[in-house]
Amino acid sequence: MEYIESVHNDQIKTAIKLQTKKYQTKSGSYFLEGPHLIEEAVKAGVALKQLFITENHQDDHIVKQFYDQSIMISDQVANHLAATETNQGMFAIAPIPDVSLPAQLTGGWLLLDAVQDPGNVGTMIRTADAAGFAGVIIGVGTAWPFNPKVVRAMQGSQFHLRLVQAPMADAIKQLQAEQAPVYGTLVNDAAVDYRTIQPTATFGLIIGNEGAGMDPALSSQTTANLVIPIPGHAESLNAAIAAGILMFHFVA
Amino acid sequence: MEYIESVHNDQIKTAIKLQTKKYQTKSGSYFLEGPHLIEEAVKAGVALKQLFITENHQDDHIVKQFYDQSIMISDQVANHLAATETNQGMFAIAPIPDVSLPAQLTGGWLLLDAVQDPGNVGTMIRTADAAGFAGVIIGVGTAWPFNPKVVRAMQGSQFHLRLVQAPMADAIKQLQAEQAPVYGTLVNDAAVDYRTIQPTATFGLIIGNEGAGMDPALSSQTTANLVIPIPGHAESLNAAIAAGILMFHFVA
Repeated sequence: MEYIESVHNDQIKTAIKLQTKKYQTKSGSYFLEGPHLIEEAVKAGVALKQLFITENHQDDHIVKQFYDQSIMISDQVANHLAATETNQGMFAIAPIPDVSLPAQLTGGWLLLDAVQDPGNVGTMIRTADAAGFAGVIIGVGTAWPFNPKVVRAMQGSQFHLRLVQAPMADAIKQLQAEQAPVYGTLVNDAAVDYRTIQPTATFGLIIGNEGAGMDPALSSQTTANLVIPIPGHAESLNAAIAAGILMFHFVA
Repeated sequence: MEYIESVHNDQIKTAIKLQTKKYQTKSGSYFLEGPHLIEEAVKAGVALKQLFITENHQDDHIVKQFYDQSIMISDQVANHLAATETNQGMFAIAPIPDVSLPAQLTGGWLLLDAVQDPGNVGTMIRTADAAGFAGVIIGVGTAWPFNPKVVRAMQGSQFHLRLVQAPMADAIKQLQAEQAPVYGTLVNDAAVDYRTIQPTATFGLIIGNEGAGMDPALSSQTTANLVIPIPGHAESLNAAIAAGILMFHFVA
């Protein structure tokens, strides 16, 4: 097994570059950190392109499975690759999955319209995964899901559901062609209390930008616009909290 | 009106110190940033101890109301006081409210057991406020609510509900003395689906530590332990998301 002890090694430099969307798109790869996430990837059948391990991980079953892709690294290199204070001794380069709009959308779909905060996007994807959604549509202006901060917050949910990058309008059109309801979230007079909506097998749920909310232009294309009545004094809910409450309403 | 143009001024140094719990406790004060939050404080009847403004804010109605407490500051001082990149030109020193356990607990109460992340604590308090809860009990090991990161995430909810610092056991005992149910959140065989619980006027809801969950020792003191069934593949929900789903179940 190859051994890298210098942070100036080209393969290490390449791994570091995989934090940026530009290089991720170019190479079709992104970066995973920690045995737990890498284990989730392997369980989901992801073919790791490269595996970096520190010496204490050399007998792990994942290393046996991906021996040809494995490279041993020094602790210094591991610290250099780690985003966190204490490195977990295992890193991988994984292929970015196909993010194109599938020909058919079945099940629950979360549509993210210009949700900017990477932590929010990751938490919403994790929540959609927990709620049993089929996938998440990443609209224009929404944080790229393979951004390291999103990856950290997703906690492996990218291996459980489908991530799709598509304009909101395209995804809405596709769901409507399948006779599925699409629910917007816009606070206006026509908005209906989410608790009155009966869940269906296939549907779309749009969550908008943290500050500005959903693009009002989309509201003419939705089946209904939902609102969470706020009995208290806070002006609004955090976008990820609102998304969580709505998604779990759709859990049968 | 006094004018401060140096960041070395003693009053500015004091304001900066108010970011730490130690100095907050000693002085009984904390720091507010931005006209929106300060407006919320004033609306709630908070008697500001000091108001720092840049020149462009000198005609604001709040300055008129707190003229004797107002100090004009240079842009350089404002940038020094600001936690964010662009300063909002208005800062205040406000009294920390009474956080002792009230003699009677009426309404919904969120009990935070060792919730460590300040952003999570702030978001949960904001959500409790939106859900119309009467207050939040800050247990041992839970982030101090006047920590600047909690204050940012609360978005003024400290002016709408009661914040109480007390050991979980004391708050549970008090609620039970009032015949009110206390719901824990612990994933075990005895846990019940939250959707089966009928909301009551007064109740307690305990949310535990992000990683370890609620202290199991508390489960013997609760009326029931609730669980959110997860139909999907994610192992768990983010603590603030789980808290949001549960709190909005209790919204009548």
